[in-house]
Amino acid sequence: MDDPQTDTLTGAEALVSTLANNGVTACFANPGTSEMHLVTALDGEPRIRSVLCLFEGVATGAADGYARISGTPAMTLLHLGAGYMNAGANIHNAGRANTPMVNVIGDHAVPHLKYDAPLTSNIAGLAGPNSLWIKSADKVEETGALAAEAFAASYGPKPGPVSLLLPADSAWLDGGVPGEVVTPPALRSVDTATIAAAATAISSASKPVLIINGTALSEAGLQAASRLKAAGIRVLTDTFYPRMRRGAGVFAPERLQYFAEGAMADLEGSDLMLVAGTSAPVAFFAYPGKPSLLVPEGCDVFDLGDASTDSAATLAALADHIGAKDAAPVETLVVPDAPTGDLTAQAVGQSLARHMPENAILSDDGVSNGLMSYLPTQNAQPHDWMMLTGGAIGQGMPLALGAALAAPDRKVLCLSGDGAGMYTNQALWSMAREGADVTTIVFVNHSYRILNIELYRTGAGNPGPTAKDMLSIGGPDIDWVQLSTSMGVPAVEATTAEAFDAALAEAIAAPGPRLIAAVVPG
Amino acid sequence: MDDPQTDTLTGAEALVSTLANNGVTACFANPGTSEMHLVTALDGEPRIRSVLCLFEGVATGAADGYARISGTPAMTLLHLGAGYMNAGANIHNAGRANTPMVNVIGDHAVPHLKYDAPLTSNIAGLAGPNSLWIKSADKVEETGALAAEAFAASYGPKPGPVSLLLPADSAWLDGGVPGEVVTPPALRSVDTATIAAAATAISSASKPVLIINGTALSEAGLQAASRLKAAGIRVLTDTFYPRMRRGAGVFAPERLQYFAEGAMADLEGSDLMLVAGTSAPVAFFAYPGKPSLLVPEGCDVFDLGDASTDSAATLAALADHIGAKDAAPVETLVVPDAPTGDLTAQAVGQSLARHMPENAILSDDGVSNGLMSYLPTQNAQPHDWMMLTGGAIGQGMPLALGAALAAPDRKVLCLSGDGAGMYTNQALWSMAREGADVTTIVFVNHSYRILNIELYRTGAGNPGPTAKDMLSIGGPDIDWVQLSTSMGVPAVEATTAEAFDAALAEAIAAPGPRLIAAVVPG
Repeated sequence: MDDPQTDTLTGAEALVSTLANNGVTACFANPGTSEMHLVTALDGEPRIRSVLCLFEGVATGAADGYARISGTPAMTLLHLGAGYMNAGANIHNAGRANTPMVNVIGDHAVPHLKYDAPLTSNIAGLAGPNSLWIKSADKVEETGALAAEAFAASYGPKPGPVSLLLPADSAWLDGGVPGEVVTPPALRSVDTATIAAAATAISSASKPVLIINGTALSEAGLQAASRLKAAGIRVLTDTFYPRMRRGAGVFAPERLQYFAEGAMADLEGSDLMLVAGTSAPVAFFAYPGKPSLLVPEGCDVFDLGDASTDSAATLAALADHIGAKDAAPVETLVVPDAPTGDLTAQAVGQSLARHMPENAILSDDGVSNGLMSYLPTQNAQPHDWMMLTGGAIGQGMPLALGAALAAPDRKVLCLSGDGAGMYTNQALWSMAREGADVTTIVFVNHSYRILNIELYRTGAGNPGPTAKDMLSIGGPDIDWVQLSTSMGVPAVEATTAEAFDAALAEAIAAPGPRLIAAVVPG
Repeated sequence: MDDPQTDTLTGAEALVSTLANNGVTACFANPGTSEMHLVTALDGEPRIRSVLCLFEGVATGAADGYARISGTPAMTLLHLGAGYMNAGANIHNAGRANTPMVNVIGDHAVPHLKYDAPLTSNIAGLAGPNSLWIKSADKVEETGALAAEAFAASYGPKPGPVSLLLPADSAWLDGGVPGEVVTPPALRSVDTATIAAAATAISSASKPVLIINGTALSEAGLQAASRLKAAGIRVLTDTFYPRMRRGAGVFAPERLQYFAEGAMADLEGSDLMLVAGTSAPVAFFAYPGKPSLLVPEGCDVFDLGDASTDSAATLAALADHIGAKDAAPVETLVVPDAPTGDLTAQAVGQSLARHMPENAILSDDGVSNGLMSYLPTQNAQPHDWMMLTGGAIGQGMPLALGAALAAPDRKVLCLSGDGAGMYTNQALWSMAREGADVTTIVFVNHSYRILNIELYRTGAGNPGPTAKDMLSIGGPDIDWVQLSTSMGVPAVEATTAEAFDAALAEAIAAPGPRLIAAVVPG
């Protein structure tokens, strides 16, 4: 059992090799002084691709996209508490997407911590609330074992981000021991009694509705969902989901509306709500006098398992149980005509539906303009659509970066609001550096347009000049072509539908990153 | 005592008017749906200038700069836990600068919280570790009182950032009651017994040294320090400090070296270390085999009060006690010749010392290149120098923005590394929007140069290609002129000393924001 090799490993090397042994193939990094030994350990690990990000929110957004597409968590490398905070919004988003992620956060050497040096902070306190699992490798001999534990913990029961703190001395000292290769836990199965009870509930309901998410949105899951649909159950997805298979040849469930009053009106009369891979739907925000829980009065909620369960298998078992043999129709390919006239969000969607290649991946952080691309692409070439599930805008471009690196043979398209894109514009630089095959479409309306809508909906009154200024990101207008080009991503602006259509066709035909500034009405 | 006006205030209005009544004059904001009523409340409060920031780290960095110059905390407006995380690194920095700051964090309406909507997070958990004080205004009638409490709490004993959570319903409901106008606590005085004991310690020391920070770095504090210097006590500042008066006519203390081994060699032989407005110095990072505490063996540390005390008053009392009447010489004005040849960090410093106008404000996030500007400006026109005290790079441009708005009649100069600048490049947009009189100098070396130094110092080994890539931000090179122009800030690149000198003279002469991309060796 003696392995002479292990005697010579640093703690950092043991950590990195353990993650590689467990199948981790990417590290999105923004290192600092306390992570120098992790950097050299990554240098010696050819199985992990290290990707430098100039802001930590890009790193965690990219790790999210990487895992959504590859199915395996990526590692991130963050610099102490401040680096974790910068990474935090997209860790929140990844948590809400149930994406496994192993965040490795460098810390000061253990003996240095008590001196409260300038970069010292309570990392466990800061990271705890958004970590499924959090431990600090305070001894060099623990780094490998804790890396294996962190990797496994990121799978759940409900998958999500975990935090492994690595003090600098645990990284630099010799004596690292590789951790085990672990079998990550699979998603839970829902028991047969629950399936039978659901079938009974359905049989006595007059207007049953099924809300799905998680693996129910895979090709197999949607196939099972379509059998339930054919058996008379209305099927909707959550408003936002991590990833769904869509397009020609795929069954398209409806989508729950974003605004609470619209969703409630739409669900009116439903007397049974089954939820699979998710929970009963909730309004994104509260509004004066409007409901929080989006379940009509008198409608029973039947829990078919949340994101810790394999909702595709659940739906198949339920369809089998009720004898639903036929499938509902799948979508057919519709290639729209080229749009003409002034550029609008609708025209962007029309072009997208025309040009999107088979098996493309969409990253949607388009905020108020995304829906107009979502609708027509239901009949486009089959593809995967990824959404912002946690509401912290600024995820779209990082997510696209990660997805592109996970699937180098697939075209990635990114929809971003201009306000959203500004949070993490540094993602463009990493796209250029890595040659990521991403076409980013920024909806340029010089406005937090969604907030203009929300200002009205919350009843916050007529906006005066200060309020208007708080919601407008014009004055000065951001020149997205310059911004993108400054970081090495070729870009063009389109103000007409014709120009956009041509630019999109060209960008899709060319490998590598491109950006189109789509100027649309505010 | 009946005030009919208060009956009609929303909670948001009570909060905002309370802060305005207490002298808050600026709000740096990145709002979302849950803050719409705060936005309209700000709209109705002419005493507070609302400044939109496109990323929350810009907002908190600007609030830090505003308070360092105005002496009064600014308000920030942040959107739930994700907004707080984005803001977090510069809140950490502000905490390390002992800058008072009132962070108002919008949250979901209280009845909505239990539904765990997508943007819900444990804000108190996330914000607690970096908040001097944190409370949630869960009832509308509390918002004014808690705003007053938050304002006062930000003054300390040691000043710093506080967090006031504002659930959306507490903001939108009527029934807000303005809080009191409070007298913020002043910094503590050090008692006379301590002063006398320090004098005794000095009299029996052969090589006493005094490390100063806080108000000791004001003009009055430095005047007192210079008397101690003339009495034979060596005077140094901390390596990093929030703000210091410098230049012609001002006593210039030495500055503690950044690298631990250099600082220790320099302090060798000191047998008494007095610390005023700070604590005994500590190495920024730990390194294998190097000391953490920067106090020579056998040197006694004498605590003259930390940042919760008025260190200027302490030094004056001590100088009086030991009968130190004479002052050490002050700096004389030296206007260097124009630099020539290839552009270097030294040439930048030389130009800066030539052109910096009287009473300028410097924001230094120049990382490895900042020192070469620090040294020659000791003999420049009198000015204030602000530093990054918390080590989370990406503070310089936001800090400069805030300082410029606090002192519209003063020129602000910002030194930023290119790596540092990328974290918060969105600050440029707010500078353009507000017409902030800031000249930003970005040291463009396409590298995390400091990390190349640190890689060697930590003994992390010879960098292979992956490690080199992790420390290089070239490939692609960022075009800072395009980046700056894209956000509305006119910019030029300089590759020679002559070009830089001309560009700096022009930028200083012109009001409003400018950027110079100073291409220096990597």
